[in-house]
Amino acid sequence: MIEKPYLMFLGDVPDALAAKTAYGIVDWRRDWCVGQLRLDGCKADCSLPDMTIADAAKSGARTMIIGAVNAGGQLPDHWVTSIVNAIEAGMDIASGLHIRLNSIDAIRAAAEHHGAKLHDVRHADRQFATGKGTPRSGHRLLTVGTDCSVGKKYAALAIEKALCDRDVDAEFRATGQTGIMIAGRGVAIDAVVADFISGAVEWIAPEADPDHWDIVEGQGSLFHPSFAGVSLGLLHGAQPDAFIVCHEPTRTRMRGVQTPLPSIDDVIDMTMRLGRLTNPDIRPVGLAINTAALAEDEARQLLRDMWKTYGLPASDPVRFGMDAIADHIVSRYRP
Amino acid sequence: MIEKPYLMFLGDVPDALAAKTAYGIVDWRRDWCVGQLRLDGCKADCSLPDMTIADAAKSGARTMIIGAVNAGGQLPDHWVTSIVNAIEAGMDIASGLHIRLNSIDAIRAAAEHHGAKLHDVRHADRQFATGKGTPRSGHRLLTVGTDCSVGKKYAALAIEKALCDRDVDAEFRATGQTGIMIAGRGVAIDAVVADFISGAVEWIAPEADPDHWDIVEGQGSLFHPSFAGVSLGLLHGAQPDAFIVCHEPTRTRMRGVQTPLPSIDDVIDMTMRLGRLTNPDIRPVGLAINTAALAEDEARQLLRDMWKTYGLPASDPVRFGMDAIADHIVSRYRP
Repeated sequence: MIEKPYLMFLGDVPDALAAKTAYGIVDWRRDWCVGQLRLDGCKADCSLPDMTIADAAKSGARTMIIGAVNAGGQLPDHWVTSIVNAIEAGMDIASGLHIRLNSIDAIRAAAEHHGAKLHDVRHADRQFATGKGTPRSGHRLLTVGTDCSVGKKYAALAIEKALCDRDVDAEFRATGQTGIMIAGRGVAIDAVVADFISGAVEWIAPEADPDHWDIVEGQGSLFHPSFAGVSLGLLHGAQPDAFIVCHEPTRTRMRGVQTPLPSIDDVIDMTMRLGRLTNPDIRPVGLAINTAALAEDEARQLLRDMWKTYGLPASDPVRFGMDAIADHIVSRYRP
Repeated sequence: MIEKPYLMFLGDVPDALAAKTAYGIVDWRRDWCVGQLRLDGCKADCSLPDMTIADAAKSGARTMIIGAVNAGGQLPDHWVTSIVNAIEAGMDIASGLHIRLNSIDAIRAAAEHHGAKLHDVRHADRQFATGKGTPRSGHRLLTVGTDCSVGKKYAALAIEKALCDRDVDAEFRATGQTGIMIAGRGVAIDAVVADFISGAVEWIAPEADPDHWDIVEGQGSLFHPSFAGVSLGLLHGAQPDAFIVCHEPTRTRMRGVQTPLPSIDDVIDMTMRLGRLTNPDIRPVGLAINTAALAEDEARQLLRDMWKTYGLPASDPVRFGMDAIADHIVSRYRP
């Protein structure tokens, strides 16, 4: 559990892309962020109030989030100085970098001295049980994809919001590093020891009230040769009643490999077949299509065509929102 | 790489079951074992010459294998004494226990002082790349199962032997702890970080001569809710041309959970569908059926029935050997 509110540390990164974690958090959890700390030369800007560490501490910041990545993913010395200062001002630190915060002597020493928590959200140090597959109460929705990086986290957060707007008791469950900072908790599922993938997901999204919806952030794709094992353990552990297929229609090969992209049909069919092992009632409830590469009229036409082809509401969550999919879920699962 | 030959340490375990790792190694690699070390009260016996550590060192033993498990999986003090003595006599140590050898001060100190290697085969400390799914030369066979613990390791070792007997260049590739001690190398695939399952298997069974066969030890089952992610990453990483389905016909539920056992048809169909992602030519080549619970005439009838039903050679590798399956592979893949 990462304590709120957050001070967003942007360092001195040369562009917004290097601070995409920070932008993601601010997009979805603006209320949790008291301000941003930018060092000289920083070209990223999350439109939060610029603050010193002292200002942020006075404003009640409990955790400084390392919301940016330096070239090479390392922590430069002048970032370490800011981190140590934040710890001295009473804050915890959360980082999604590969390097562990406590592997840096100055940070470890300061954290020990001031009793600060160091959250390395890319690592999964907790011990999990193996998955059991036992049916559990509550509803769960999983976002799945035709590939990695097709908007599964965004779709999950957008459907959480649209369901909450409809007075559904829905909660986003994070399985990746940025998601964990957005949720304030979760597990980087790709960092779990292989034997415990589904068990970790059972822990992330436990038994709940019958009308509650956990919205589980998907990872990878059942058709990606690097990561399909993670996706399958996630599917079995999530035991979803419903899933949304996320897709980028102009992509032809899976990210980082030569494998062709599967069709949406393939993904629906395989997700149903494999998902039935732990939830016989699993079904698709919508398509989240990233249409950024298309003109608006083309995008609208594509979504209409898909809706007709698959018999499922299709939308671009960024461009057109998730109202249609949320309405479909509400009417389909009305108590 | 575990140095050979081995001294098999059996401790003072109360029965043969507690030394099943040792029995497995002796079954398949008798030539690698110079002797066994049994403490007072030991009720296990691998039919190796009983030796002191000094005898074993004189006989050339390079590694002492912890071939038994104490109640609770811990290392009792008097076992630690034997381990330290073996290190002092110049041996490396290999253990499949959960506890890491170097977490015990006396063992770590002795190993540092004498330059001994400590192999914790249950852990996978090496860094792997993510899987690529790129086609690679050489043939690979994977043993898959309707469940955990249905004889996948045994079937893999038996088919390796039967193929080698037919002058096929075949080599067992270990993915579990006992298998690693039998092969002298390998990776405990269920202990790898989830993101790297298929990548680790690509490393275990790399590109090879076109006529070479790697026989990859399977793990879990695509239908087991705890471990299917491991099985899928293993399937994608192994990129198998051929697979053998292992099955225990009297079992009705999957090991450790309430999930019903899948049919052999289910396993063949799903292995083909998912396996085609990294090898479009994947096909089943045989059924390895554990008939221990059946009388011999029942067993023979069952295997005849299965052969007819599935159009694949079916045998019990322990009871009737792997000749039929090996002959089928040789004729099917003759250069």
